[in-house]
Amino acid sequence: MTGRVLVPWTQNRDNAPDGLRVEVYDGSAEPPVDLDDVVFYVLPYGAEPVDLMRRMPRLRAAQLLTAGYEHAVNALPEGASLYNGRGLHDASTAEHALGLILAAQRELPLWAAEQSRHSWDPHYTRSLADSRVLIVGYGSIGEAIEARLLPFETDVVRLARRPRPDADVYGIDALHGLLPEADVVVIVAPHTPATEGLVGAAELALLRDDALVVNVGRGPVLDTAALLAENGRIRAALDVTDPEPLPPGHPLWDAPGVYLTPHVAGGSATFYPRARRFVDEQLRRWSVGEPLLNRVALDHG
Amino acid sequence: MTGRVLVPWTQNRDNAPDGLRVEVYDGSAEPPVDLDDVVFYVLPYGAEPVDLMRRMPRLRAAQLLTAGYEHAVNALPEGASLYNGRGLHDASTAEHALGLILAAQRELPLWAAEQSRHSWDPHYTRSLADSRVLIVGYGSIGEAIEARLLPFETDVVRLARRPRPDADVYGIDALHGLLPEADVVVIVAPHTPATEGLVGAAELALLRDDALVVNVGRGPVLDTAALLAENGRIRAALDVTDPEPLPPGHPLWDAPGVYLTPHVAGGSATFYPRARRFVDEQLRRWSVGEPLLNRVALDHG
Ligand SMILES: NC(=O)c1ccc[n+]([C@@H]2O[C@H](COP(=O)([O-])OP(=O)(O)OC[C@H]3O[C@@H](n4cnc5c(N)ncnc54)[C@H](OP(=O)(O)O)[C@@H]3O)[C@@H](O)[C@H]2O)c1
Ligand SMILES: NC(=O)c1ccc[n+]([C@@H]2O[C@H](COP(=O)([O-])OP(=O)(O)OC[C@H]3O[C@@H](n4cnc5c(N)ncnc54)[C@H](OP(=O)(O)O)[C@@H]3O)[C@@H](O)[C@H]2O)c1
Repeated sequence: MTGRVLVPWTQNRDNAPDGLRVEVYDGSAEPPVDLDDVVFYVLPYGAEPVDLMRRMPRLRAAQLLTAGYEHAVNALPEGASLYNGRGLHDASTAEHALGLILAAQRELPLWAAEQSRHSWDPHYTRSLADSRVLIVGYGSIGEAIEARLLPFETDVVRLARRPRPDADVYGIDALHGLLPEADVVVIVAPHTPATEGLVGAAELALLRDDALVVNVGRGPVLDTAALLAENGRIRAALDVTDPEPLPPGHPLWDAPGVYLTPHVAGGSATFYPRARRFVDEQLRRWSVGEPLLNRVALDHG
Repeated sequence: MTGRVLVPWTQNRDNAPDGLRVEVYDGSAEPPVDLDDVVFYVLPYGAEPVDLMRRMPRLRAAQLLTAGYEHAVNALPEGASLYNGRGLHDASTAEHALGLILAAQRELPLWAAEQSRHSWDPHYTRSLADSRVLIVGYGSIGEAIEARLLPFETDVVRLARRPRPDADVYGIDALHGLLPEADVVVIVAPHTPATEGLVGAAELALLRDDALVVNVGRGPVLDTAALLAENGRIRAALDVTDPEPLPPGHPLWDAPGVYLTPHVAGGSATFYPRARRFVDEQLRRWSVGEPLLNRVALDHG
């Protein structure tokens, strides 16, 4: 008797290849009593009941729908591999980054405030076209941001940890040289010891007057105090902040030229269809013995 | 002695090919006293002093920097051709259209209001990815909007006055059949007798609940009363309105799900470099006897 597969959505059960024993567990109700024969477990998104894995001795694959995976490592049984949701949030995060850039350049928050005052008072704005955009953290989401930027007639400059000269990607050592030429800087690097405060007072000082800093990565990569000290000389559009959540009364709320959204870049409707299709594909691979996508390289995995 | 050329920007004079007699007239000061020998006149943008052409008996080319040209036709001397600014506003208008779509889908006006209240209260939003976007008026700006939409993982459907089956463009007769399948409708058609009220009560009724109507064309193409009668069943993001300017107290200001900007799509910083480069290119063509770009077909021209 083959082992069972737990999936979070009925669509995945209905689309499953013949021969798989697939059961829906969406994390909202009680889990199945007997987990002994679960071999493939797709964790429900949001709830993330990782501890159930401790009751799955035959588990071979644990599929997370988040990009982060640290929370699941300790509960993973011997012999099971871990897979993450890398890529599932790219479209959502990248389109929010574009929304922030366009909102800042075209003054959309101002027009929203004007609307609430019933005021029709147009003026010329900045634009995105003809801008040079520096992407700090050119990974999966950075590529998705670039793809969306290019038809806006922008010049995109890519920067990652290590240079990849064959792919026109600069390494982090080039940061100071590139900042003075940028009109827009998009931060989409993860939070690590090396990225904490990566964009601080020295880096902001290198930017042109009126340059725009966008952060859709993690709050601590941009030094909040340094940004506040610029006092409107440069502008910012931030989906992530340090601290986060930003407490009422914090000076960043009212800082000149700063536009905030509350860490909503990754969380939009586009995630669900992508995640369901991805789980369908993983089940197909599983059923024919192809390697699953998005395996996380663990020391013991 | 060759005739004179009037240009609005010093850059155009400085870049002009050798042998041309180029003079700067930017519309802000008094015009040159003697206009008798002007053969090529690039009208200053904004001011649009068309009547000066009546004092240019040798004029052969009048270059407008606007797309509209009706205001210049009557002042055009016998023997002169008229050229317009078609294309110069495309990048600006298209990027504003994308800004409106993203603002509506990702609730940017709400986050701006939340910021002013110091409130960090995230929730999942709609997204643009996976949407079907119908472009009503697939011309120069419509193409620019499509180019920017495609990397957002959308499905774009094109509609113009006449069908162009070879280019996958539907004609206006297909409108009613296409509306029920659209998540987003972008209106970018001109205001003509045929387009007035083109999107009215019958058309809005065909849209899905929660569909988004964007108007960056002209206000009267969308029937304001019909939109108000939908009372939030569908959403709208409008850069142009009917009436325009929208008077204080008009119900559209506070209509549920309606987001307004005050006719600022075409007017952004990106226009100027494009217009200057375009004038440089026209001077180059003029100097070597190549046909100028953007000739307006007039009955008598
Ligand atoms: N705001 C939101 O809602 C939201 C949503 C999803 C994700 N995120 C954030 O976005 C981050 C990026 O996600 P992703 O999927 O694109 O990750 P990814 O594919 O792993 O890419 C990360 C990129 O950052 C670069 N990087 C790492 N350390 C760096 C350093 N010290 N200096 C410069 N660049 C550095 C990496 O360079 P190498 O290629 O050289 O290693 C890589 O190019 C995530 O870690 C997460 O924090 C935010
Ligand atoms: N909001 C702003 O700031 C701003 C800025 C610039 C322009 N605009 C507006 O945008 C409009 C479009 O500009 P454009 O440069 O893209 O013009 P364009 O290249 O002439 O394209 C106009 C398109 O509208 C279509 N059209 C005309 N009548 C139609 C009808 N009855 N039903 C359906 N489609 C119809 C045309 O179809 P065919 O190809 O079949 O003729 C054409 O595809 C301008 O007229 C102007 O009103 C607004």
